[in-house]
Amino acid sequence: MITIRVVDLRSDTITLPTDEMRKAMATAVVGDDVYKEDPTVNQLEETAASLLGKEAALFVPSGTMGNQIAVLTHTARGEEVLLDSEAHIYYYEVGGPAMLAGVQLRPVSDLLTDHGPEILKGSLRGEDLHFPHTSLICLENTFNRGGGTILSPHTMGRIYSIAQEHNLKVHVDGARIFNAAVSLGVDVRTFSQHCDSLMFCLSKGLAAPVGSLLVGTRQFIERARKYRKALGGGMRQAGILAAAGLVALQNVDRLAEDHANARRLAEGLAKLPGLGVDLAKVQTNIIVVNVNQPRSAADLTMALNNKGIKCSTFGPSTIRMVTHINVSKEDIDYALGIAKYLLQ
Amino acid sequence: MITIRVVDLRSDTITLPTDEMRKAMATAVVGDDVYKEDPTVNQLEETAASLLGKEAALFVPSGTMGNQIAVLTHTARGEEVLLDSEAHIYYYEVGGPAMLAGVQLRPVSDLLTDHGPEILKGSLRGEDLHFPHTSLICLENTFNRGGGTILSPHTMGRIYSIAQEHNLKVHVDGARIFNAAVSLGVDVRTFSQHCDSLMFCLSKGLAAPVGSLLVGTRQFIERARKYRKALGGGMRQAGILAAAGLVALQNVDRLAEDHANARRLAEGLAKLPGLGVDLAKVQTNIIVVNVNQPRSAADLTMALNNKGIKCSTFGPSTIRMVTHINVSKEDIDYALGIAKYLLQ
Amino acid sequence: MITIRVVDLRSDTITLPTDEMRKAMATAVVGDDVYKEDPTVNQLEETAASLLGKEAALFVPSGTMGNQIAVLTHTARGEEVLLDSEAHIYYYEVGGPAMLAGVQLRPVSDLLTDHGPEILKGSLRGEDLHFPHTSLICLENTFNRGGGTILSPHTMGRIYSIAQEHNLKVHVDGARIFNAAVSLGVDVRTFSQHCDSLMFCLSKGLAAPVGSLLVGTRQFIERARKYRKALGGGMRQAGILAAAGLVALQNVDRLAEDHANARRLAEGLAKLPGLGVDLAKVQTNIIVVNVNQPRSAADLTMALNNKGIKCSTFGPSTIRMVTHINVSKEDIDYALGIAKYLLQ
Amino acid sequence: MITIRVVDLRSDTITLPTDEMRKAMATAVVGDDVYKEDPTVNQLEETAASLLGKEAALFVPSGTMGNQIAVLTHTARGEEVLLDSEAHIYYYEVGGPAMLAGVQLRPVSDLLTDHGPEILKGSLRGEDLHFPHTSLICLENTFNRGGGTILSPHTMGRIYSIAQEHNLKVHVDGARIFNAAVSLGVDVRTFSQHCDSLMFCLSKGLAAPVGSLLVGTRQFIERARKYRKALGGGMRQAGILAAAGLVALQNVDRLAEDHANARRLAEGLAKLPGLGVDLAKVQTNIIVVNVNQPRSAADLTMALNNKGIKCSTFGPSTIRMVTHINVSKEDIDYALGIAKYLLQ
Repeated sequence: MITIRVVDLRSDTITLPTDEMRKAMATAVVGDDVYKEDPTVNQLEETAASLLGKEAALFVPSGTMGNQIAVLTHTARGEEVLLDSEAHIYYYEVGGPAMLAGVQLRPVSDLLTDHGPEILKGSLRGEDLHFPHTSLICLENTFNRGGGTILSPHTMGRIYSIAQEHNLKVHVDGARIFNAAVSLGVDVRTFSQHCDSLMFCLSKGLAAPVGSLLVGTRQFIERARKYRKALGGGMRQAGILAAAGLVALQNVDRLAEDHANARRLAEGLAKLPGLGVDLAKVQTNIIVVNVNQPRSAADLTMALNNKGIKCSTFGPSTIRMVTHINVSKEDIDYALGIAKYLLQ
Repeated sequence: MITIRVVDLRSDTITLPTDEMRKAMATAVVGDDVYKEDPTVNQLEETAASLLGKEAALFVPSGTMGNQIAVLTHTARGEEVLLDSEAHIYYYEVGGPAMLAGVQLRPVSDLLTDHGPEILKGSLRGEDLHFPHTSLICLENTFNRGGGTILSPHTMGRIYSIAQEHNLKVHVDGARIFNAAVSLGVDVRTFSQHCDSLMFCLSKGLAAPVGSLLVGTRQFIERARKYRKALGGGMRQAGILAAAGLVALQNVDRLAEDHANARRLAEGLAKLPGLGVDLAKVQTNIIVVNVNQPRSAADLTMALNNKGIKCSTFGPSTIRMVTHINVSKEDIDYALGIAKYLLQ
Repeated sequence: MITIRVVDLRSDTITLPTDEMRKAMATAVVGDDVYKEDPTVNQLEETAASLLGKEAALFVPSGTMGNQIAVLTHTARGEEVLLDSEAHIYYYEVGGPAMLAGVQLRPVSDLLTDHGPEILKGSLRGEDLHFPHTSLICLENTFNRGGGTILSPHTMGRIYSIAQEHNLKVHVDGARIFNAAVSLGVDVRTFSQHCDSLMFCLSKGLAAPVGSLLVGTRQFIERARKYRKALGGGMRQAGILAAAGLVALQNVDRLAEDHANARRLAEGLAKLPGLGVDLAKVQTNIIVVNVNQPRSAADLTMALNNKGIKCSTFGPSTIRMVTHINVSKEDIDYALGIAKYLLQ
Repeated sequence: MITIRVVDLRSDTITLPTDEMRKAMATAVVGDDVYKEDPTVNQLEETAASLLGKEAALFVPSGTMGNQIAVLTHTARGEEVLLDSEAHIYYYEVGGPAMLAGVQLRPVSDLLTDHGPEILKGSLRGEDLHFPHTSLICLENTFNRGGGTILSPHTMGRIYSIAQEHNLKVHVDGARIFNAAVSLGVDVRTFSQHCDSLMFCLSKGLAAPVGSLLVGTRQFIERARKYRKALGGGMRQAGILAAAGLVALQNVDRLAEDHANARRLAEGLAKLPGLGVDLAKVQTNIIVVNVNQPRSAADLTMALNNKGIKCSTFGPSTIRMVTHINVSKEDIDYALGIAKYLLQ
């Protein structure tokens, strides 16, 4: 039997719980969270609300559920939601907003850039019998399909002001909001102050096995709780998972290592023949690599994979690589070595 | 009291029934169409199916309902529908596909151009757990927000081939499909052969007071009939309306007058200072006029309206004008005179 | 060729427009109702609102659409609607409330009887995380599957009081509300004062070819208008149909003839061997006939139909007969003669 | 400080994970289950499918989600689902079938009794334009609101036969199906052979902290997986929870203790003045206690609760008590003592 060394850069969703998390889960005090009697879930929700500067929080089994509940809670059926044309909610959530909430998505380009506020203004239609009423804007920070880029607090603030002028709510898909905060070296509230609700993940870079949190006003979270029940997201002794989440929130600063590794990897790949990386966009733990013709991105993904360097085809000529807790600096150098070998 | 002459170019939806239609309505033999016992409705449905070369047809109270029923019938909840980013179904139908059918719209630019087939190919995503399954493409011909432009039968054919290769259904919002056929001087089946279903309107250019038809296979129409009932589109002695529709279908060629008037108006406006018209796009009865700075389109619309020339603001710097049976050649010249007066 | 005399007692939906209606339709002044510019539709809506004592009205193509729009407008997705377990909205509207509005129906027995208020009180559940929020009660008057029975204004008033105490809205499916008013000899407002919205039909007993009206507060109707557009119920020159509706509303008292005919028929049938009719329930134009064993209702329906007396199987051992403008006193006697012949 | 002894009989959802489960969770080998790479989840799904005699299984965060996914997968929007008028899916799942799946529920009484097959036959309506198509029957075993009663394999078989004759699918809400199997002393497949899909819970009596399984054909489960993703039920390193589930499935026979305790409690309560228990219905771990006038059920629940005996008001004059792993025989005797004290 031959074992090959594997460096798995497909996603930070694959991160494994730490020993400290496992210990916390094994000893967690739990109760029935549907009755709000799980003390560990309660503690996690209070911690999360406080960290993000919101009144209340709700523990949910996934980021997708957190986003879908936010859409359900902020909108009425038949309304329209404005979001980026590459947003996770539009691209990767199985058409949930239409199926579950009965709302139409209105994707617009470049919303998650510095031009976002102008894009937003230009996209608002007045009221008309023929138009669905627009009630919600969804942002995403960091922006997954944008390559892990950060929407600056300043731009978020400008967007939130415009939204408030037009009676629009703002929800943030902040699955990786802590990556944004750590990268800029700011408190996460610098971002979360500019929205009505935000969802962030304990899995992904923070390495907890399962779970995300939705934060907002107390009233919003109470309504969200009912939608969570309807979707089947009400779990019983969820304190087991929450215990790992509490550990995860104590280790947020570790994300800086993932960012350093991403930069190291990006700079190394940028030097290789046939590859290109927009280094300005490597702001957190995600790297989008442009693969020059004639080789297709899919071919190179497969070649790397065969050599143990797992990554994802992201478009016809782009590959995505994501660094995380289970990828060390040595792994990065090893991956670069393999890539160099394959491309020369 | 002063009466001013009004030339109403807002839309061809405002057309009034002809005397012949009124006579037909007054004497129509009717029955209960929910029981399929209205002979005039039955005759209209057979006539429509035959004209469009499809197995069966269904009479519905509006074009919007015809489109929504098509979406309901071709899709399952949670699926995705590909259409142009300016399509009527996306832009003007109150978010119906999400609210009623639970399907996500995927708007793409330039689908309704000669590049449509390439755009389509580039937009298809493979199957993935995260993606809604794509099941339907909606075309629009003529293309309202495109300025009444015609999607050529050749391009439709190419799109339909790609769709069939990928097991996608094609529905055509053909509210003005007879304008396309008359403009090109071809049988309407030249278009309708390249789709699974098509909706066309008896109101609009054909001047009937109320009603549209959805055509497709017999099985499709039977399923559509149930959705029509659910939406509340099952009408009782609808033969009154169908009688006018049968008259309308005997006068399709008259649309050529509207097209001639539109061209006359477009060419006249193109010569006026501060206005621009892309004459190549004036293919049927719709004219999009570009209003040059500093005057806004809304201002000019209001000025024209005050002088009796009614039209619609279409965008920040565009106005839409539509010719129809209740606008004569003399009206066109009168409208041009007013416009000239206002712009000099 | 042999022609047989047909007495069609299947439903009052089959009624044919009168000559006066046809004349009114042929000469109606019309406009584009989507722009609220159809004067005849506007007149009908004002007339209807005034007749029913509500602020505003909306013309819709069918009773089903009127009911569905009411449900959409009064509820939010995920809520629950309480109604009778034999209500038209639950039994005959193709599951529209779930599909279109995303609301769960909670059918309860005997809501549309004098015990309705007690039934209602006993059916209300308090708020609980597991329960959908109840927001609407739907009544039906007269009660189709109840046999055209009348829910008394007194009982409606008691139900409305309970509803208001619990912040519940009340919608009335009043497809045949004028039958109730004429039968009791009271102003229709005696009923309509006890609800937030009411739908009534111009077709059915009033004999107009197509159309129903939804009435309620101005704000309710404005929101309803948007849902009508989404369902595809926005019609263009609908004044054609509204003209017939205005005539229909001038002939409401004629319903008394249908009621007299129904009673004559019911009393006659009650005397025949093998049949039973609960005469106390023959309050308007609907008769439910119990067919005693061993003959099945379906068999007798077919036998009557073969002899030209059309009626509907209503249950395993019940037949429904409905009188209307196109059934005369002579037709009733003829039908009784046939029934007598068949049953002896 | 005074501590009072608490016997919590509100529900078996409050059960705490065993030490063995905690150990299994702490050491579970995990991966990313969205990529199907969590070996412990895979093992649990295979084990569950095999135990229930179905091709495949899907791990979901709650019984409600399992049921909702089953409804989504078996039906198309606009269809109708037949179920008992006290079924959990209808009574306690927040209107999910309407909101998420767009399907109408058709509750019928006594479906979950020996008369179920006849009730079912009598409830089937033929196809009609006005009726939603019926596509699914949902059973529940054991029947929560029935008092934990068992629907016998024989009756399930008869219902399944009728369903198959009418092309209806059968889903079983088997949250407590192992209680049924242990109580009758039969293999759980004796039940699960008579359905197309079944959901059972690892939490509740089996005491795992979180999670349920949906079983069915391979094709059904693949489609269900997509709906799970859409609802946000796709979890990452869910093997933590699955590890506890695997332990739970090794201890199914322990449920016999809960049943013995329930019987002991029921027999004791039945002897107390002012209480009544239908002992024939105490078949598993649920007891419904009838409280005789003048005392209300709510009052007695509160009195018991104040003395540390927690239970639930179930109706105006009924209380529900549920035995489980964290209630011992001594607890039962203690609870009986308190009840005796309060009622004398």
